[in-house]
Amino acid sequence: MRMVDLIAKKRDGHALATDEISWLIGKYAAGEIPDYQMSAWAMAVVLRGMDDRETSDLTLAMARSGDLLDLHDLAPITVDKHSTGGVGDKTTLLLAPMVAAAGLPVAKMSGRGLGFSGGTVDKLESIPGFRTDLDAEEFRRLVREVGLVVAAQSGELAPADKKLYALRDVTATVESIPLIAASVMSKKLAAGADCIVLDVKYGSGAFMHTLDDARRLARAMVAIGSLAGRRVAAALSSMQQPLGHNIGNALEVREAIGALRGGGPADLVELCLTLGALLVRLAGLRERDEDARELLGGVLARGEAWAKFRQMVAAQGGDLAYVDAPERLPGAPVQLALPAPRAGYVDAIDGMALGLAVNALGGGRSRKDDMIDPAVGLSLKAKVGDQLYLGQPLLTIHAATPADAERVAPRLLAAYRIGAAPVSPPPLVEEIVS
Amino acid sequence: MRMVDLIAKKRDGHALATDEISWLIGKYAAGEIPDYQMSAWAMAVVLRGMDDRETSDLTLAMARSGDLLDLHDLAPITVDKHSTGGVGDKTTLLLAPMVAAAGLPVAKMSGRGLGFSGGTVDKLESIPGFRTDLDAEEFRRLVREVGLVVAAQSGELAPADKKLYALRDVTATVESIPLIAASVMSKKLAAGADCIVLDVKYGSGAFMHTLDDARRLARAMVAIGSLAGRRVAAALSSMQQPLGHNIGNALEVREAIGALRGGGPADLVELCLTLGALLVRLAGLRERDEDARELLGGVLARGEAWAKFRQMVAAQGGDLAYVDAPERLPGAPVQLALPAPRAGYVDAIDGMALGLAVNALGGGRSRKDDMIDPAVGLSLKAKVGDQLYLGQPLLTIHAATPADAERVAPRLLAAYRIGAAPVSPPPLVEEIVS
Repeated sequence: MRMVDLIAKKRDGHALATDEISWLIGKYAAGEIPDYQMSAWAMAVVLRGMDDRETSDLTLAMARSGDLLDLHDLAPITVDKHSTGGVGDKTTLLLAPMVAAAGLPVAKMSGRGLGFSGGTVDKLESIPGFRTDLDAEEFRRLVREVGLVVAAQSGELAPADKKLYALRDVTATVESIPLIAASVMSKKLAAGADCIVLDVKYGSGAFMHTLDDARRLARAMVAIGSLAGRRVAAALSSMQQPLGHNIGNALEVREAIGALRGGGPADLVELCLTLGALLVRLAGLRERDEDARELLGGVLARGEAWAKFRQMVAAQGGDLAYVDAPERLPGAPVQLALPAPRAGYVDAIDGMALGLAVNALGGGRSRKDDMIDPAVGLSLKAKVGDQLYLGQPLLTIHAATPADAERVAPRLLAAYRIGAAPVSPPPLVEEIVS
Repeated sequence: MRMVDLIAKKRDGHALATDEISWLIGKYAAGEIPDYQMSAWAMAVVLRGMDDRETSDLTLAMARSGDLLDLHDLAPITVDKHSTGGVGDKTTLLLAPMVAAAGLPVAKMSGRGLGFSGGTVDKLESIPGFRTDLDAEEFRRLVREVGLVVAAQSGELAPADKKLYALRDVTATVESIPLIAASVMSKKLAAGADCIVLDVKYGSGAFMHTLDDARRLARAMVAIGSLAGRRVAAALSSMQQPLGHNIGNALEVREAIGALRGGGPADLVELCLTLGALLVRLAGLRERDEDARELLGGVLARGEAWAKFRQMVAAQGGDLAYVDAPERLPGAPVQLALPAPRAGYVDAIDGMALGLAVNALGGGRSRKDDMIDPAVGLSLKAKVGDQLYLGQPLLTIHAATPADAERVAPRLLAAYRIGAAPVSPPPLVEEIVS
C-alpha cells in the first residue's frame, strides 16, 4: 500500500476500504507517513467527504492507536458526557455529580481549554489541591470507590487523533463533519464508557455554524457509537449566549457549587436535567423522560449531587474548605462594571467574543503551554431577552489590573447586541438526536 | 498574513489575491512555510481550481523565485520549445537545429528523464564528450556564437517550482491543470525566450488523458505566456503511439541524425515542420504557415539543419566522429526481435508501457539519481495502421543481457493492440491553440 495512492483515491471521491484506513492511521501514528501526505489527505477528506462506514473505521483506528480503557470489571455500566465546546459551559461540574449520585458511575477524561473555550480540568484546578493528572490505577480506583472521577485526558488515549488534530489545526482542515466526529468519538470510545451523551453547540462561535450542520455532526457521532456497540445520544443547542452567568475558571466553579446547593441558575440546571435524563434513559435506569428528570431533580434537591461533588473533590485532593466557602476560591483584585450604552432589550450575546476577552484577561490559553489565572473572568448581569436601562450593568469584569479590565471593555460592549423590541430568550436545547 | 488563512480561503473556493500568492511562494521557497501546509493548499487547488489570473500570478511568483534569464543583449528574439512528455520524443534534436538554421536563436534548458519519459539532455549525453551542465556564461556565449544551445536545466531556475513539484509528486496533487500550467510556464518564463511553442500530449500515458483536458492545459499556458508578454502557441497531439521508430537514448540520437540528413521518419519530420512553422510565425519571420514550412523544409533539404546540429555538438564538447558515423554511438550487445503473436492490423501501441520497458532495461530513471545505460532501447518495426503477418517482427529489443530482453518481452507484447480490420494511422497533430 502507498499513501500517495490512498490520497489520490480520496481526491477522486472514492471511499477508502477498512484496511486502507487502518493502515493509514497506524503508519501515521508510527511516524511512517509524513505530515505533508497526511494534510493532503485531510484536505481531500474536507472537500470530498467520507461515508458513515469510513468515518466509523477512522474513529476505531484512532481509538486503537493507544490505550483502550475497559471499565467493566469496575461497574456493569459507566457513562460519559462531551460538549463540542461552549463559553461559560460548566455543565460537567453539575451534571457529573447528579448522574453519579443517581447511581451511574461517571468516568470522565476531559481536555484543557484552548482558544476561546475553557476546559473542565482547568476549572476544577482552581480548587486548591485538586489533582487531575491521575494515572490509570488511581482513575480506576476512583470509579470504583467514588463512582465519579474527572481526570485530564491522558496522552495515551487516541494518540493518532491528537497528532492529526494538531496538524488539521494548522492546515485549515478542521472544518469537516466526518473528521470532527471521528476526533471526538475516538477519544470517547477509548475512554471506555458504555453510555455517552453529546452536547453539540451551533452558532457563529461554534465548530458548527448552523443547526443543519450540528444535526449532521450529531448523527455522525451517534452512528459511530452505535457501530462500536455504545449507546449514544446528542442534544443540539444554540450558542446564542453563554450558559449561566459566569465565565472564568474559579467563577464557573462558584456558579456550579451554587447550582449544586440548589441556587440555580435556571438555564444551567435545565440543561443538566435534559442531558442527565438522556444518560439515565440510555443506561436503562428509567424509561420515560419525565421519570428520568424526576430521579435527577430529587438527587439535586436532597443534596445528594452536592455530597457526591464534595466526595470527588476530597478524593482528588481538593481542599473542601474552599468548596464549602466558595467565596474563598481565587478572586480577582479588580472588579469593573460595564454599563449598558443605551436602553433596549438584549438581542444576542457573542459568546466567542466573551471567551476571547477572558483569554485576554489571562483566564485562558492561546498556546498549549500558556499559564492561566483562575481568578479572572466575567459575570453577566444581563442575558438575552432582558430589558436594559441606560447605564445598567451589562456585566462585571474580573481582572488582575484596572488596565486589563479597560483594555477588554470595548470588545465586551461590542459583544452585546441591543435592540429596541422585546425578544424571547432562545430555547436551551433545539432537538435531541439519538 | 497566515498560511492557514490562505489554505482556508482556497478550500472555500475563493481566489487568492496577487500579493497572497506572491507571499505564499516566497515564504515556501525560503523554507518558512512547511510542506504540510503547502500540500494541503495544493490539494485545495486540485479540487477547487484557480482562475487565469491566479494561475498567472503563481507562474510569475515561481519564475521570480530564482534567476530570470534576459537574452536580449544576445539576440533581439529567441525561441524555445517544450513538450509535456512523450515516449520516443526526439523532436528537440531535429526541431532546434532546423529553426536555429532558419535564423531563430534557440536557447533551450531541458530536463533529465524521469519515470517513463526520456529527457533530451540524457539523449544528447549519449554522444561521447557532450556536456550539458553549462554555466550561465557559457550558455549565453553559445546562444550568441552558435545560435543554438541545449543545456541541463539549472537548479537556479524557478526553484520554488522544483520544490513544489517534488511535493506534489508524493501528495497526489499533480493532476491539476492550473498547477501543471504554472509549473511548465514558470521554467519557460525564467529561461527567457520570447517565442515558445508547446507540444501538449494527451492519451492514457500522458498527464492529460483527453483532448479536452489537453486543450484546457494548452489554453492556460498560452494565456499565462500572453499575460507575461511572451508569444506562445501549442500543438495538441495524441500519444496513441510513440513518435518515429526508436526509443532509448542513443537509438533516438541515431534516428534524429538520420532525419537531419534527410532520411525521415516521416512522422518525426512532419511534427517538427508543424511545430517549427509555429515558431517561425510567432517570431514574425514568415506570416503564412505554407511559407514557414517552406523555409524550414529548405533548411532541412539543403543540410543547413544538419550543419547547425554538428556545430552545436562541437561547441558543447561532443565528438563529431560519433555523429558523423552514428553506428559508433553506444550499442547494446543483445538484440532480440519480438514476433507478432498473430496476423492483423496494429490498432494502438501503449507508449507508456514501452517507456517503462526501456526503463526496466536500464535506459531510464525510476529515481532522480539512477544511472542510465544509453545503449538500450527499442526499435519499432510496426506502427499503428501497419498490416502484420504472424511472426513478423513487431520490434527489436536492445538489451544489456538476454535475460533483460526476455524479462520485458511479455509486457511489450501486451503493449501492442492488434485488430482484425484495417485502421488509419492517427493524426499527428489534432489542433493548434494560440
